[in-house]
Amino acid sequence: MRVLDHPEVGEIRLESVLHALADPIRLQIVRFLAQAARGVSCSEIELEVSKSTGTHHYRVLREAGVISQVYRGTAKFNALRRDDLDTLFPGLLDSVVSAIAARR
Amino acid sequence: MRVLDHPEVGEIRLESVLHALADPIRLQIVRFLAQAARGVSCSEIELEVSKSTGTHHYRVLREAGVISQVYRGTAKFNALRRDDLDTLFPGLLDSVVSAIAARR
Repeated sequence: MRVLDHPEVGEIRLESVLHALADPIRLQIVRFLAQAARGVSCSEIELEVSKSTGTHHYRVLREAGVISQVYRGTAKFNALRRDDLDTLFPGLLDSVVSAIAARR
Repeated sequence: MRVLDHPEVGEIRLESVLHALADPIRLQIVRFLAQAARGVSCSEIELEVSKSTGTHHYRVLREAGVISQVYRGTAKFNALRRDDLDTLFPGLLDSVVSAIAARR
């Protein structure tokens, strides 16, 4: 089965995480995943962009270390790397998720 | 005296703040300002970039609402907009500053 590349915990860089979060579509994905108790397939998150653009945004999040993506069959399932991020950058993910939720 | 444009508090956007922070030089500036008790002139912060590149980075931070810049004479003095950011995005600035400081 195809396995997607993920940075190791020690390879996750603050700048890359901030860059990955600095986009409204990617924030929408992060917010959705933050509320989910389990892995979520891409098709469950409705984004107002084309499928290929959506795929790009998921990849940016994965390559920065913000989310994990695993194949089940032909679908990719996504989850926040909450433990890794909380360990590396305590409070960062929570403050961003709260800020998204509070946004006007 | 020349006055520089700053976004009003209500105009500060999460994506712009995250984008402004997603750069090693700008994180270096933010870290320095977070430790300063007063406004700091650009020349006090040693950056390993040209003066014009440095000016660009300060402008990105200002236009995103991360810092304020005021002229005193011909020098620009910089300060974090900590109160505004803490009100808009509680915990965000602290978590980023802590993450910079803890970085390997």
